[in-house]
Amino acid sequence: MGNSFGRVFRITTWGESHGGAVGVVVDGCPPRLPITPEEIQIELDRRRPGQSLITSQRSETDTIQILSGVFEGKTLGTPISMMVCNQDARSQDYAEMQNAYRPSHADYTYDAKFGIRDYRGGGRTSARETIGRVAGGTIARKLLHMRYGVEIVAYVQQIYNLEARINPDQVTRDQVESNPVRCPDVETAQKMFELIDQARREGDSVGGIIACVMRNVPPGLGCPVFDRLEADLAKAMLSLPATKGFEIGSGFSGVLMKGSEHNDLFYASGDRIRTRTNFSGGVQGGISNGEDILFRVAFKPTATILRPQETVTPRGEPTILKPRGRHDPCVVPRAVPIVEAMAALVLADHDLLNQAIHNPLSRS
Amino acid sequence: MGNSFGRVFRITTWGESHGGAVGVVVDGCPPRLPITPEEIQIELDRRRPGQSLITSQRSETDTIQILSGVFEGKTLGTPISMMVCNQDARSQDYAEMQNAYRPSHADYTYDAKFGIRDYRGGGRTSARETIGRVAGGTIARKLLHMRYGVEIVAYVQQIYNLEARINPDQVTRDQVESNPVRCPDVETAQKMFELIDQARREGDSVGGIIACVMRNVPPGLGCPVFDRLEADLAKAMLSLPATKGFEIGSGFSGVLMKGSEHNDLFYASGDRIRTRTNFSGGVQGGISNGEDILFRVAFKPTATILRPQETVTPRGEPTILKPRGRHDPCVVPRAVPIVEAMAALVLADHDLLNQAIHNPLSRS
Amino acid sequence: MGNSFGRVFRITTWGESHGGAVGVVVDGCPPRLPITPEEIQIELDRRRPGQSLITSQRSETDTIQILSGVFEGKTLGTPISMMVCNQDARSQDYAEMQNAYRPSHADYTYDAKFGIRDYRGGGRTSARETIGRVAGGTIARKLLHMRYGVEIVAYVQQIYNLEARINPDQVTRDQVESNPVRCPDVETAQKMFELIDQARREGDSVGGIIACVMRNVPPGLGCPVFDRLEADLAKAMLSLPATKGFEIGSGFSGVLMKGSEHNDLFYASGDRIRTRTNFSGGVQGGISNGEDILFRVAFKPTATILRPQETVTPRGEPTILKPRGRHDPCVVPRAVPIVEAMAALVLADHDLLNQAIHNPLSRS
Amino acid sequence: MGNSFGRVFRITTWGESHGGAVGVVVDGCPPRLPITPEEIQIELDRRRPGQSLITSQRSETDTIQILSGVFEGKTLGTPISMMVCNQDARSQDYAEMQNAYRPSHADYTYDAKFGIRDYRGGGRTSARETIGRVAGGTIARKLLHMRYGVEIVAYVQQIYNLEARINPDQVTRDQVESNPVRCPDVETAQKMFELIDQARREGDSVGGIIACVMRNVPPGLGCPVFDRLEADLAKAMLSLPATKGFEIGSGFSGVLMKGSEHNDLFYASGDRIRTRTNFSGGVQGGISNGEDILFRVAFKPTATILRPQETVTPRGEPTILKPRGRHDPCVVPRAVPIVEAMAALVLADHDLLNQAIHNPLSRS
Repeated sequence: MGNSFGRVFRITTWGESHGGAVGVVVDGCPPRLPITPEEIQIELDRRRPGQSLITSQRSETDTIQILSGVFEGKTLGTPISMMVCNQDARSQDYAEMQNAYRPSHADYTYDAKFGIRDYRGGGRTSARETIGRVAGGTIARKLLHMRYGVEIVAYVQQIYNLEARINPDQVTRDQVESNPVRCPDVETAQKMFELIDQARREGDSVGGIIACVMRNVPPGLGCPVFDRLEADLAKAMLSLPATKGFEIGSGFSGVLMKGSEHNDLFYASGDRIRTRTNFSGGVQGGISNGEDILFRVAFKPTATILRPQETVTPRGEPTILKPRGRHDPCVVPRAVPIVEAMAALVLADHDLLNQAIHNPLSRS
Repeated sequence: MGNSFGRVFRITTWGESHGGAVGVVVDGCPPRLPITPEEIQIELDRRRPGQSLITSQRSETDTIQILSGVFEGKTLGTPISMMVCNQDARSQDYAEMQNAYRPSHADYTYDAKFGIRDYRGGGRTSARETIGRVAGGTIARKLLHMRYGVEIVAYVQQIYNLEARINPDQVTRDQVESNPVRCPDVETAQKMFELIDQARREGDSVGGIIACVMRNVPPGLGCPVFDRLEADLAKAMLSLPATKGFEIGSGFSGVLMKGSEHNDLFYASGDRIRTRTNFSGGVQGGISNGEDILFRVAFKPTATILRPQETVTPRGEPTILKPRGRHDPCVVPRAVPIVEAMAALVLADHDLLNQAIHNPLSRS
Repeated sequence: MGNSFGRVFRITTWGESHGGAVGVVVDGCPPRLPITPEEIQIELDRRRPGQSLITSQRSETDTIQILSGVFEGKTLGTPISMMVCNQDARSQDYAEMQNAYRPSHADYTYDAKFGIRDYRGGGRTSARETIGRVAGGTIARKLLHMRYGVEIVAYVQQIYNLEARINPDQVTRDQVESNPVRCPDVETAQKMFELIDQARREGDSVGGIIACVMRNVPPGLGCPVFDRLEADLAKAMLSLPATKGFEIGSGFSGVLMKGSEHNDLFYASGDRIRTRTNFSGGVQGGISNGEDILFRVAFKPTATILRPQETVTPRGEPTILKPRGRHDPCVVPRAVPIVEAMAALVLADHDLLNQAIHNPLSRS
Repeated sequence: MGNSFGRVFRITTWGESHGGAVGVVVDGCPPRLPITPEEIQIELDRRRPGQSLITSQRSETDTIQILSGVFEGKTLGTPISMMVCNQDARSQDYAEMQNAYRPSHADYTYDAKFGIRDYRGGGRTSARETIGRVAGGTIARKLLHMRYGVEIVAYVQQIYNLEARINPDQVTRDQVESNPVRCPDVETAQKMFELIDQARREGDSVGGIIACVMRNVPPGLGCPVFDRLEADLAKAMLSLPATKGFEIGSGFSGVLMKGSEHNDLFYASGDRIRTRTNFSGGVQGGISNGEDILFRVAFKPTATILRPQETVTPRGEPTILKPRGRHDPCVVPRAVPIVEAMAALVLADHDLLNQAIHNPLSRS
């Protein structure tokens, strides 16, 4: 349980860090969508380790294989099974994990829940699990782009105490990809890089905030009450490793406004109904209103640090954990394509759900 | 779609603001749980309008009827259907809503999605929908309390720019209920009351932040990957009207810490494994670790204000909305029991899911 | 769990036989579908007790109330809550049930599963539960009829050893409703009536077979692999009380044919592709092919008989059950509208699912 | 959609006949269950082609790979991904299928639904899809056997007009496996073999009936109303290729009994409550009663025959299909392990669902 996401456009991910492979099955993708392994590989390359000095040096090509569901370059409407083989699994680096619970990792809670744990590289809790999300999300994104021209751009807004100045209305993917931090404010990006690199050298880690904008989303996506668009986005983002917070539109800072300031006044623009401000973040009553969808996600500092830490063994005896292995001093830059993928999955699923209930009375 | 929540312990709510009634069906509740209408009524009374000067003056007793699923004071294991009749529905107050989209409400998006809308009192988007959540959540809470002694206490942490000083480890329900704002910091509560009352007199509105603590949660609740406990809590909270943000543990402020500061070190305390700090907020890898679960929810200022606002008609023509009707200048105090109810629903569902996979090898 | 049916067009039923009411919530119905209580009442009247000499004499008007989801005669796209109050509940008739497990009823298995049971009138296992199915199914049927002109006609094909001669291609609802047995072969219907009446006088019961035809179903409904149309129809029918078998198309008798006889050869008829025979029963590979969908359902003789029977008490002590109360000597005639309702629910759900994945590349 | 089965113990299958591989992801399996590839291979070998003269001569070893979810011989509680590579895919044999709809196959309906089709070897509609079901079902069966000693034995009861005489109470797996027809009545099995072989030589095909018995099922499995045990079994069986009917207990022949004959009288046997007869087939009110669960499934004659058949092209033009390729003159013997696998999956899922709602009041 817990390894599937979505209702109609639905992914199921599988795989442990040091097993043979990790993968995903995408069910519910509409037929006849053109998709190539190359399109998916581009996104996987954005999340893979070893991209730059400030990411984990685990050496993985993360080459995607499409095993089913695509025929002559188009989706069949049947399940799309995709897989990436694990290559650079140095299990010996992780022997310590077997006998010491890593602080703020899931070693203890997995043992508490399952009574068994694949301790090698974090097993199922490894960020390698997100490979399947990115692969599936790329297909969702392609669907949304072909249908509506939807653009989804996430970027690093803050690392530790360094905040970038970015206009979400204008930011482009090229700007995001222009530097290894994935922060389109180039000057701040350079400082962020140095900060992360310093944390790396100190064996420490830092966190940050990713912002995401979705443009050209048609009005009407999202369901009333429990499956509101922002509720599903919140769930999607909080399902990512190391996330601690989510906000949409005005978010927590909206608390500091009066209703008379916060309300987004409607006006007509051609045949569209628009709002003058967008404190709602593109969603009202759980349903998209056609304005840009804007949200932010908080990532804690990586739990893996290369310093000795007090902890306990599975038997509860005090011990000192001296981590070896490879680690990301900051996961936030690599998380950018993952945030985009999850956002695309949420939106594609709601698009299909919305389509399901339309035009009740027309004869086909 | 979108009107159900939970997988095993599952509620389905129904009802419009000015229809005959609102209600909920609870499916998946274990059998033989003692429950009375009085227990549910206590929670409904905490959320109903007309409690104090600073809530809507709509006059509703919100009297619960249990129509099925309970026999001789105990649950049967069959669906529990509960209903509250709508009494004080003054539809004439809302005639304006038919012809003008209320800013930052869901009038426009419902029309965009469904092409039809019950404009009376907001229809399905009314906060009366949350009656069913509270009724269902009270049963979930009872279950958790009987099994584990779980305590769930939510309270108002901030209204507009007024922040309370509260120790979440110690706060009690009695403290929360000691004043109409539901802020256990009595001095700040008084200021908050005055602030809300001033907003009411000005026809304006304010928002705030609710914090929630869950105590005595056993380790092991929550599922890996997509159905992490914090992901489901985030979804639950963002499914509430007027919410804009969610954070757990250190939340957004955790970004300002290094990994070496943020990691919660393990130690043994008797036969329990505990953590010295709780920046994780009681959840690690999506699974409860036995520490208090701590989260916060941001509520925007109420969209309904008693001031003229520019907007458009459903045909896109400019118009001025002059709202009449009753309104809450601040929904946050009434949202406290709703936050608790949703938290209880998430936890009860995960408790049943967890129970489902336990003890694979024992013969019954 | 277990009280909901469907994925997009989804019903949840609730209620015990001698509780205050029974009801249903329909979620996922498309908006703007015209529906009136009268249309639903027509179907409920076909299933209610007391219609004729050969049905239970429990006196219930089964008057439907629509509590939500319909506004000015049209569906809103929000949950449709419908309810029927229980009126003629003579609980004293059922005191014996508390202390004796009725043979071939669910008294024992409910106790085994839940450890508690509402013994009055069978509680949740009462056929009154099917009121919600019929109410929800009527809305599904209306949707299918407006979209495609779908006709769903079920009828009694066999009672005990009396088989009717009916051409499923031609049978009409008027023929079915022309007699209380709901068998369009009038001559056999008269014999069936006498047989059932004799069983009634002897305090015994009989079963039978219902056949159902669905016409004008568009090709393309049904999902590959697990959610085949016939698989969902089979589940729907076997979820009805007293059913023991389901077959589609050639069914069990198809075993007696060779492949060369059984294969339905394709031919072109105008712009449609048709089959010369229909041993497939309108479904191939789990997906409708545009031919009539034909299936049959076996109902066992009613378990309630008015004769003393050996059984045990909940403590396992031998006892004699002497049933009083009212009973149906044959449930089959009343089950006709219920079979139609379940068939409509399956088809409407698959229609919405099918619509969800269509036209992936068109911009809206 | 449609490629997953189960709610808590849940499988998702993927793969086309001539793609790179076919596989399954099992989610929700309890942790710490011992399982080896060898145990799964045994069952796959029972369903693979080329076992005997009367099965398809496609040469596949169907060697299972476990890619995740199992660690040091035990399940982790994480998704178990399993895969079989396709080896002997002779796509050239199937070129005709591209331009002619095979009668009583799914070529036409897939085109009608998806507008695209992998015509090679039937693509997704190939029986190779059932490899994933058998692999997942073997794990479910192991779970049920370790917990309760559940035995699941299916066997061939009828081929064409040849009916076997078998006592379902006594039949053993060894008897079933004693001959290639999988009919424990050895004498009839020999005649069946000859009949199938004759159909093969004539390029024709035959169908049959599989019976299945499940022993040592504890009372209490199954959910009220829609998710009755027999409803889920019916869905499971009708989701198998070539099935046309399902019956449980007395089934269709129960129609020929009076209630006074059909009712299963209760008696006490030690501390168990038993029934003197078992026309209910081990299920009452949708819930297991502890008696043997008995059901039967009808399989039509294989649609693939090696004779010319009239049909149409995708454009609706008349044509003659002259099939080449390999085919099973009768799928029934190979379907025996598949029926067992699906039965195990249904039962394991209900076992976990049942466990989820138990013991509401005990503190852990």
